[in-house]
Amino acid sequence: MDITQGLSGVYSPVVTPFNAALEPDAKRLIRHCKWLLAQDVGLAVFGTNSEANSMSVSEKAGLLEALLDAGIPAERVMPGTGCCALTDTVNLTRHAVEHGVPGVLMLPPFFYKGVSDDGLFASYSEVIERTGDDRLQLYLYHIPKVSQVGISLALIERLMKAYPGTIAGVKDSSGDWNNTQSMITEFGEEGFSVFAGSEAPLLATLRAGGAGCITATGNINPAPIAHLYSTWQEDDADEQQAALNSVRDIFQDFPMIPALKAAVAYYGDDPDWISVRPPLVALTSIQQKSLIDRLNAHGFVMPDLRKWAETD
Amino acid sequence: MDITQGLSGVYSPVVTPFNAALEPDAKRLIRHCKWLLAQDVGLAVFGTNSEANSMSVSEKAGLLEALLDAGIPAERVMPGTGCCALTDTVNLTRHAVEHGVPGVLMLPPFFYKGVSDDGLFASYSEVIERTGDDRLQLYLYHIPKVSQVGISLALIERLMKAYPGTIAGVKDSSGDWNNTQSMITEFGEEGFSVFAGSEAPLLATLRAGGAGCITATGNINPAPIAHLYSTWQEDDADEQQAALNSVRDIFQDFPMIPALKAAVAYYGDDPDWISVRPPLVALTSIQQKSLIDRLNAHGFVMPDLRKWAETD
Repeated sequence: MDITQGLSGVYSPVVTPFNAALEPDAKRLIRHCKWLLAQDVGLAVFGTNSEANSMSVSEKAGLLEALLDAGIPAERVMPGTGCCALTDTVNLTRHAVEHGVPGVLMLPPFFYKGVSDDGLFASYSEVIERTGDDRLQLYLYHIPKVSQVGISLALIERLMKAYPGTIAGVKDSSGDWNNTQSMITEFGEEGFSVFAGSEAPLLATLRAGGAGCITATGNINPAPIAHLYSTWQEDDADEQQAALNSVRDIFQDFPMIPALKAAVAYYGDDPDWISVRPPLVALTSIQQKSLIDRLNAHGFVMPDLRKWAETD
Repeated sequence: MDITQGLSGVYSPVVTPFNAALEPDAKRLIRHCKWLLAQDVGLAVFGTNSEANSMSVSEKAGLLEALLDAGIPAERVMPGTGCCALTDTVNLTRHAVEHGVPGVLMLPPFFYKGVSDDGLFASYSEVIERTGDDRLQLYLYHIPKVSQVGISLALIERLMKAYPGTIAGVKDSSGDWNNTQSMITEFGEEGFSVFAGSEAPLLATLRAGGAGCITATGNINPAPIAHLYSTWQEDDADEQQAALNSVRDIFQDFPMIPALKAAVAYYGDDPDWISVRPPLVALTSIQQKSLIDRLNAHGFVMPDLRKWAETD
């Protein structure tokens, strides 16, 4: 099974810091990205956990430029570029490809519900044609519980046939292992990279021939997740998976995005990280304390985060 | 019961024409808007049926400017300005208010699901504060089947208390008459304008003290709907309502937006109107024929549309 044509490994949908005026804070984002890279985790900026759709096209394009200007290597960045509006998706995708990223992760347009595969095929097709750049490597983003618009196996097959050099993989955030497994079985041998939508099925995904995972908790537990990725054939892989799950379980008892930010704020000693853009709501101080108490009791650490938070 | 403080009447979420390159076609939009105004129907441009969220902020701002430049009176325009991104919603809202519209219709941010009323309150609050213009008259847009993020009675009450001169009304596209009635009963006497989300409950809405309706089929059957609005206390009101429903029922057997465009294309003798932006899909020629056959058998007409389609 050959998955070396596409991207692989562990990626984090990087949480986006906002300042007191709720503007994206490029400086803090750069620091967090550098810390993640030092832990061997790639940067799926502008994902669901990045509050990407709470930002405008120009805010996202500006942040990507700031990251690259700060020396973050483009080859480690896989930005989300899928919006509701065709023209927004095209603008973000073209901008990302022109800045040298090796792949983009693309939501389908998600305002209208119950749309047909014909309509979704036309959406992706228009974006590919209008981007008009052979370098485009497109990873489909299947997250039906949030977008409410899913990507079927039949749609993937049709897109791969129409754009074989462009359709590169998928992030499957369905939470349905049977679906992830089917994607790997049906398309993995053609070099299609299947990323699990969290680290919970990471070991199963790698054993089945998948490419890795793109996971929210990559923001706070990156090195152990990356370690399982690189040592999944070792004897302790199941133990590693269980340890990852025990950390994830704590976060899943809280609203995920605010909880990730609360952990970065606490372990980085950088309280401004707590902010979210509406419609999300930051953890209350009681929730923050409950989260941190549980993490500390668990022996959880975010190595060197404080050091990175102090650099510029 | 005093609803004269806010807007009232019949509005149409105006369908947006696209050219062969799928760009918004301002000239055709202006013609259709002028025809609607001549039929006594107001212009709720950039609604769900306008494919508003399939267009970028700059495309929508450009179309609004084109309409006003063409002599469409701002006081008859109620644009939709709600996007996922706070900054997009603020930009569109400020632009609309600065161009003199008497109200905007605002979706809540709709990417994240299961968000709290606290988060939605914060969203609307940030938009109002950042728009920073006393002229803003905000109509909330409740369309849970599409947005999957609803606006509760408790949220309306809280927003009205916090921004009494700004929160002006609601469009209720829940399709749940009990909800529409509750909105009117609880807030109507305070000058809060409740618009039904279609003409099907128009008579019931007016009898209960509501403000009118904002309806997809206002695009194709405007004069009869406006006539019921202005004569709802006459003896033939129930007959009028039944006649409106019989037309609406035909459209509801097809995908609504493509069907509206197919009717404008046919009765205006202007086939380019058929285009939709992905992820929507235009009616097939078989569907078009089926729709038009049923409308013709019903004796349906769109008076003077052809004449307007020929003007510039």
